[in-house]
Amino acid sequence: MSNPTTITSEPGVPFVETIREFDAPVDAVYRAHVEPELLAKWLGPRRDAVKGIEYDTRVGGRWSFGAASSDGYEFTFSGVFHTVEPQKLLIMTFEFSGAPGQVGIGATTFEDLGGRTRISIHDVYPSVEARDMAVASGMDSGVIEGYERLDDLLAG
Amino acid sequence: MSNPTTITSEPGVPFVETIREFDAPVDAVYRAHVEPELLAKWLGPRRDAVKGIEYDTRVGGRWSFGAASSDGYEFTFSGVFHTVEPQKLLIMTFEFSGAPGQVGIGATTFEDLGGRTRISIHDVYPSVEARDMAVASGMDSGVIEGYERLDDLLAG
Repeated sequence: MSNPTTITSEPGVPFVETIREFDAPVDAVYRAHVEPELLAKWLGPRRDAVKGIEYDTRVGGRWSFGAASSDGYEFTFSGVFHTVEPQKLLIMTFEFSGAPGQVGIGATTFEDLGGRTRISIHDVYPSVEARDMAVASGMDSGVIEGYERLDDLLAG
Repeated sequence: MSNPTTITSEPGVPFVETIREFDAPVDAVYRAHVEPELLAKWLGPRRDAVKGIEYDTRVGGRWSFGAASSDGYEFTFSGVFHTVEPQKLLIMTFEFSGAPGQVGIGATTFEDLGGRTRISIHDVYPSVEARDMAVASGMDSGVIEGYERLDDLLAG
């Protein structure tokens, strides 16, 4: 039984809030968010092939990955890190190749629940329209499925 | 006679829009936005001493500067560059030392008006409250006065 993923996007503001708990210690959850070889094992929905993962997890470092969906649609996500506080906080920009120039910023907070971990993500898009398009793209199902894969990885 | 600076912050959203024209070519206006020795001559209001300006204007590069106001209040602004398209577009994160962890993202567009230049800045704060606090701080008067100093620099 997976923990629920809560994704909230209030109307009229450009934010998306995501909250998820994991039955694993914070150091393991954090490592799975910053080490490319671990990210490759859970990032994105099962149907998409994630590739070209690069995470230079330090201030000013770049991150990026590409994916090809089963229907042949290829895209990339990329950005740079503004804040890196291991096991506590990552703040990074993000840009989707399907919406070039629409650059947002996201903050991921890691909370140590004593052997369990809560992550809270505050994503900020450059406009309400850009946020609405991202939400309408069905991004949430990929996020939820990715976290289920991460559950499996952390239990493995 | 200076060109007007238009600063707009609509209620309920975390954005600030700034528009300003300069009676100088786009290459000169752009250089004044990325070269530390030029920034030192115009950034901020006349009353504050801006210091420690660092601009590593490339993707992933950091920018920062500090200032001490005449009443002794010291602060820094800093961030990293996500997009660098010379004479066209700069997208960078920003963080104010007075509100640590409240990281925003700003996009500055440079438009060549044929010997004159228009810059348009779209700043996005991580919350409406953070935007409102920045606006309430009187940041606008520093921006307007800085641009008047930039007019002088460009005419010099």
